[in-house]
Amino acid sequence: MAIFMERVEKLKKIGKKAGIDAFLVSSEKNMRYFAGFSVLAIERFAGIMIPVGTSAPIVLVPKLEEEKAKEYSAFKEIRSYDDSENPAMLLRQVVKVLRMEKAVFGVEGILPFKFYRMLVECSPKIRIEDASVFFSQLRRIKSYEELKRMEKAASIVAEGIKAGIDFIKPGVSELAISFQIEKTIKENGGESVPFCIVLSGRHSALPHGETSNRKVREKDIVLMDVGAVYEGYYADITRTVFVGEATKMQTKIYEIVVKAQETAIKTVKSSVKAEEVDRAARKIIEDAGYGEYFTHRTGHGLGLEVHEEPYIAAGNKTVLKLGMTFTIEPGVYLAGKFGVRVEDDIAVSTPEAKLLSSLSKELLVI
Amino acid sequence: MAIFMERVEKLKKIGKKAGIDAFLVSSEKNMRYFAGFSVLAIERFAGIMIPVGTSAPIVLVPKLEEEKAKEYSAFKEIRSYDDSENPAMLLRQVVKVLRMEKAVFGVEGILPFKFYRMLVECSPKIRIEDASVFFSQLRRIKSYEELKRMEKAASIVAEGIKAGIDFIKPGVSELAISFQIEKTIKENGGESVPFCIVLSGRHSALPHGETSNRKVREKDIVLMDVGAVYEGYYADITRTVFVGEATKMQTKIYEIVVKAQETAIKTVKSSVKAEEVDRAARKIIEDAGYGEYFTHRTGHGLGLEVHEEPYIAAGNKTVLKLGMTFTIEPGVYLAGKFGVRVEDDIAVSTPEAKLLSSLSKELLVI
Repeated sequence: MAIFMERVEKLKKIGKKAGIDAFLVSSEKNMRYFAGFSVLAIERFAGIMIPVGTSAPIVLVPKLEEEKAKEYSAFKEIRSYDDSENPAMLLRQVVKVLRMEKAVFGVEGILPFKFYRMLVECSPKIRIEDASVFFSQLRRIKSYEELKRMEKAASIVAEGIKAGIDFIKPGVSELAISFQIEKTIKENGGESVPFCIVLSGRHSALPHGETSNRKVREKDIVLMDVGAVYEGYYADITRTVFVGEATKMQTKIYEIVVKAQETAIKTVKSSVKAEEVDRAARKIIEDAGYGEYFTHRTGHGLGLEVHEEPYIAAGNKTVLKLGMTFTIEPGVYLAGKFGVRVEDDIAVSTPEAKLLSSLSKELLVI
Repeated sequence: MAIFMERVEKLKKIGKKAGIDAFLVSSEKNMRYFAGFSVLAIERFAGIMIPVGTSAPIVLVPKLEEEKAKEYSAFKEIRSYDDSENPAMLLRQVVKVLRMEKAVFGVEGILPFKFYRMLVECSPKIRIEDASVFFSQLRRIKSYEELKRMEKAASIVAEGIKAGIDFIKPGVSELAISFQIEKTIKENGGESVPFCIVLSGRHSALPHGETSNRKVREKDIVLMDVGAVYEGYYADITRTVFVGEATKMQTKIYEIVVKAQETAIKTVKSSVKAEEVDRAARKIIEDAGYGEYFTHRTGHGLGLEVHEEPYIAAGNKTVLKLGMTFTIEPGVYLAGKFGVRVEDDIAVSTPEAKLLSSLSKELLVI
């Protein structure tokens, strides 16, 4: 529980500097981050009110989530409402108890309008600000425990991809390979598998292609892009392999992509800018003459969400810090022919970047 | 395209009555409903501005979605912004062009706070109201085309469950059965399978249990609750079957649940209240002495979302109308022993309710 107290203390400090009197946290991910439990607040309102002053955080949940909150919440001041009550009334009480009628509240940018409205109607003098940047400022630096979970998530995804590779042969469908990967991940303790994309042959040239019934053929490329969650934390890994043989052209592209990825990983260190990592990958591919076929950013932050800060993209001047985690996933896509992408999960560490995922990148012909 | 014009005309009519000058629609489902295409507006803003007056709707999208919008949107006035531009500026321009600086805007309750903020900052005289009730008022009545899609979705899920049943035997895991169902659904044209829950033995007694590695044994119950999407529309079906044999007790409970479900379906007609349908199912189970083991509502609306209006629940006085669609899914859960749930998808029709799903409910021993 100490970890949640610590996170809340850091948030309070940030709030004080920014002139925020209290935070209202309502998203699943942020509730999990700050209080160790979450409920999906879509139909019904749930949230944690975190005053920046000395008062303890107050947890607000629908009645049917009260037991869960009591068991798992790091904060024990819990108030609930049942289906015959209006959560707006409960929120109003809490605002009153905390003497927050004239407060500046920091909320999440994704807070649904209907919940924003409930808060703003608690008192005519309330002011509400988007505090997303403060939440992500904390969340983007991972603790030791978070890194361990992400490493575990990555090792589970790696097992899944290995099982997928073992399963590939001419005649099996993309869907069948995808199921094999997903099954292996779940058997290895993966909580969920939000995506498990298998693209073969020409399909591999579609950066946003979808797994289909297409059967793998001799001389195909097979690209697998897999995300899974372990104790709330994501891993996201891509590997591209060859069936029967890799042509000279395919081998060349594969080597360029791996070189781009490894070069980008080498540039990752504290005090480097996110855009410099993107540049490093892009330069290798551009110098090889394939710049126009690398059509997406080099990577995205990873953690409780599959896309979060920092984005490894041109123009992002965010300075990398120890404990930040993200993917590095350059790709080259030759429309109508084939595509290659290689993706690993990285933590900014010292003296060099730490690979959270470990899975061979050697060119593999099955 | 006529269908989208028609929906927008109905929305305008409702807006006029309610004193709303324009709607801003931004959720994936409502964009699909009103304009025939959607983009996921989470990281980047996208939406459709629908003035209640004579001006045409204006579509706002990030640059990278512009081609998609041009191809699929029912409304051809499309404005885009690229990553170096601020969507707030674009929104402000549109508000100005439409002379909506003093307008009352109707938005979705789930509109993210950051997008609400962009709209409200377009002009100091703008007022914003939650128009969710108007959107759902339209969406809950399905057209012929929508019903056809839901029927198709249901037939695909039925194929999946049949494949699952064929696959069940002692020794196979819940996960393996679940994959078999999901695979069959995708092979039959299912767009996605958002849930595919298989619970065996004692697990079947958990109304919110999760598919596990548990292997099916002789004399187990197996409960399958499966949702899939076809052309945007959901089906959601549950069947419970028996392995080797059904005990007297299991047979009794199964028959009570089926009777409750069929009785509830018989009460479904235009002008009946949602709560009366719930009551009909509940009464059968209560009269049999198992009321306390039927721990959830009888059903939920179904359409572009898996949970929408009308909810078939105690206290819901919504009057059913022709074209409304929902699940009827009573269950009895005997903790530590077993559970039975039977679920079908229903449309309010005349002279009687129409079953969208057709799959045997006879007690099946595998």
